[in-house]
Amino acid sequence: METKQKLNLTMLCDFYELTMSNGYFNSGMKDRICYFDVFYRKCPDGGGFAIAAGLEQIVHYIEDLHFSPEDIEYLRGRNLFCEEFLTYLSTFRFTGDIWAVPEGTPIFPHEPIITVRAPAIEAQLIETFLLLAINHQSLIATKANRLVRAAAGRTVLEFGSRRAQGSDAAILGARAAYIGGCHGTACTISDQLFGVRAGGTMAHAWVQMFDTELEAFTTYCKLYPNNATLLVDTYNTLRSGVPNAIRAFNAVLKPLGITKCGIRLDSGDMAYLTQKARKMLDEAGWTECEISVSNSLDEYIIQDLLRQGAQIDMFGVGERLITARSEPVFGGVYKLAAVEDEDGTIRPKIKISENVGKITNPHFKKLYRFIGNDTGKAIADYICLHDEVVDDSKDMVIFDPEATWKTKTVYDFTAKELQVPIFKDGKLVYQLPTLEEIRIYCAQQVDTLWDEVKRFDNPHAYYVDLSQKLWDIKYAMLKRHS
Amino acid sequence: METKQKLNLTMLCDFYELTMSNGYFNSGMKDRICYFDVFYRKCPDGGGFAIAAGLEQIVHYIEDLHFSPEDIEYLRGRNLFCEEFLTYLSTFRFTGDIWAVPEGTPIFPHEPIITVRAPAIEAQLIETFLLLAINHQSLIATKANRLVRAAAGRTVLEFGSRRAQGSDAAILGARAAYIGGCHGTACTISDQLFGVRAGGTMAHAWVQMFDTELEAFTTYCKLYPNNATLLVDTYNTLRSGVPNAIRAFNAVLKPLGITKCGIRLDSGDMAYLTQKARKMLDEAGWTECEISVSNSLDEYIIQDLLRQGAQIDMFGVGERLITARSEPVFGGVYKLAAVEDEDGTIRPKIKISENVGKITNPHFKKLYRFIGNDTGKAIADYICLHDEVVDDSKDMVIFDPEATWKTKTVYDFTAKELQVPIFKDGKLVYQLPTLEEIRIYCAQQVDTLWDEVKRFDNPHAYYVDLSQKLWDIKYAMLKRHS
Repeated sequence: METKQKLNLTMLCDFYELTMSNGYFNSGMKDRICYFDVFYRKCPDGGGFAIAAGLEQIVHYIEDLHFSPEDIEYLRGRNLFCEEFLTYLSTFRFTGDIWAVPEGTPIFPHEPIITVRAPAIEAQLIETFLLLAINHQSLIATKANRLVRAAAGRTVLEFGSRRAQGSDAAILGARAAYIGGCHGTACTISDQLFGVRAGGTMAHAWVQMFDTELEAFTTYCKLYPNNATLLVDTYNTLRSGVPNAIRAFNAVLKPLGITKCGIRLDSGDMAYLTQKARKMLDEAGWTECEISVSNSLDEYIIQDLLRQGAQIDMFGVGERLITARSEPVFGGVYKLAAVEDEDGTIRPKIKISENVGKITNPHFKKLYRFIGNDTGKAIADYICLHDEVVDDSKDMVIFDPEATWKTKTVYDFTAKELQVPIFKDGKLVYQLPTLEEIRIYCAQQVDTLWDEVKRFDNPHAYYVDLSQKLWDIKYAMLKRHS
Repeated sequence: METKQKLNLTMLCDFYELTMSNGYFNSGMKDRICYFDVFYRKCPDGGGFAIAAGLEQIVHYIEDLHFSPEDIEYLRGRNLFCEEFLTYLSTFRFTGDIWAVPEGTPIFPHEPIITVRAPAIEAQLIETFLLLAINHQSLIATKANRLVRAAAGRTVLEFGSRRAQGSDAAILGARAAYIGGCHGTACTISDQLFGVRAGGTMAHAWVQMFDTELEAFTTYCKLYPNNATLLVDTYNTLRSGVPNAIRAFNAVLKPLGITKCGIRLDSGDMAYLTQKARKMLDEAGWTECEISVSNSLDEYIIQDLLRQGAQIDMFGVGERLITARSEPVFGGVYKLAAVEDEDGTIRPKIKISENVGKITNPHFKKLYRFIGNDTGKAIADYICLHDEVVDDSKDMVIFDPEATWKTKTVYDFTAKELQVPIFKDGKLVYQLPTLEEIRIYCAQQVDTLWDEVKRFDNPHAYYVDLSQKLWDIKYAMLKRHS
């Protein structure tokens, strides 16, 4: 579609990726194979896990990666890069390998969500976009999943476009929210582009445009008898809005035999108003009329409303979902884990620092999830060297990498590799699932987590352990630099 | 530039704007002239004001507003819209008027930042994008201005692309941060597209790629002798990073007679480490070496570091700027203020609700800022009816709209209209300023605010008063609906 063409995002990189790349180019390192991991350090909102999302956008980005003549011209104008490097960039493509956990997978801190193996410049230049895509969509998918869990089976819709941090945040935020379990969005273009079902009926302006609220409601019911959700709080919810909605339903829908309809409240005390409204609707015979609410909702307010007996069928969540307001940053990072010598030997690399939490797991690694055969529940994740193989036919002793004396024996389990190959030698080798498939997969995978991991307050810290071999390598490197 | 083509964003609307528009179309209201205001209700972070930004993107959006055949096809598939309406959309353009305060203007709660006068459907369909653009960029410009004020003359750079909520958040966030006073960005494409100066030198990966830190530093200095800012915290800042930086400067820069260089710290105790590093650099004769820091900075940490005597020349601010982490939502809303009868009579409209804070200011309005002739400082803002004229040659008594008994006499002032015409009959009548002009204008306008309005804690509540006529109309409408 011509009008849906997107900005090429190759230049959406941090400038230092270009200065470093020019540096690698001029230091004979441009073809040096590097391994980088994307991982995060802390679950948002004190939660027990996050939901991976954003891979599809990374795939499109990698496939479209190239510098246009205008890009080269801009870079030449900066007077920092040699002509040979600019010539190299003019035919630059991604030729490396990428592994990643599929979108919708529950992920835990310090796990390699994405691993890149590529020549130094290629691996370096994609840093910013990879992080941005994962950080944004994982943030929103994780938040959406919390909201959906709080709503306990009720419908949750994404309503936040107008408060999103830019167009992409609205469009892809709706996509990520859908992956996390939301049932739809208000954002039309997200439906058109990704199939996130978009819906909506009226704003306060519709009600204000008519001489009376009743006229506004009646007109709407006539126009959309099968989609009549009326916004009842423009003037006074209980004295005017709900009675007028009932009048409009009686006048227009009843003669048509339509029993499904809805009202929406966007202000006021939702616990009180929805219970009163429910009573009025039921007494008028509109028992199938659904009640939607929307007004600065989050997972805690949703839980609290339900605890108070609020009568709500549908939650429209705006700014607190689309910006993940309570913690709007998913802190994924991109760190060098290894380099390859010319003979193919992989040399692990580590980043140490004054902040212990910023120390990385070195080497080219593999990520397993252990699933209990009896329960179908996830027991632990296990990070090992790329060439280690877990034998899940035997019992296994694993240990906490931050408190190595704490061990756990796992038995009767299936070890599942979480990363799958996405690109091999620059070629896409992954069949992108549909959004619907990702959403279903996400729900299934969240179901494999114990409730203790899923609760909002003080969730159980899920085990993410290192293999003995990996731990020994890391420890030796730490000792060497300390 | 072919590769820089953007997605057409006409379909980035809330679905209810389409259902309402189809409703207006079918209720004989499509040509009814409406007035909508964009305003916000609360300053982010408890601040005293915000910075308006995002207008340029709105101008481009309005000029590009159209539904493609694919858009129409999608809408037809929803089975909610009549064919006549879809035909109408196929030639849809914006034909109305838009007034707005220029980008970079300090703005206060409840003021009309943008006013739209247009036929109902046109005015309704642009709601989401107008809000999204203003909400996002005003949020970031406001946050950037806080950071720049905290840095008290030192350089502040925007470093947050990787943590941004999508590509637009990174690209336009860097633009907004520049408007608010940041001196540059790490985001290359924001430089290319908007001229936000992009810079950067190295990540930890550069240091890790070499066998030794010293080799990494020396190589970098040779490549970029005039742009050598070395990241010193990969292994150990004081024992390894700073000494190696000094060795590299001595080995490479000194023979070239270069005295300007830099180091960057990205972890650890910044107050302690920068003071130690400064001493080491000075003792080695590198007094012109600038010290940059970057690690979860915000305006309070910057103030605190400076209070502790940290030796910092440059702050790189990441996630806490690009997402405005402490309060990531700018709550701008879009509310119907009036409709026009066929004879041109303007009928004010109000939105009342259980939440008093959600009550709107009705009518087609005008916004003035009163500037003291002696001080050059802003005294108050004044919202009146569109046809009222303030005579600033005389003293004037204004009153607080929330406590009408509180009055204030203003004298010796100049009344300046804040909104300027942007579109007239669908035609752009505004010369978009350059980004550099906006940035300078913003700094000048912030200078017109008293320090009491600018402080972070308990800022003075700036006066935003209503004219007597406007207040009387609002009061009568409130009484009628109560």
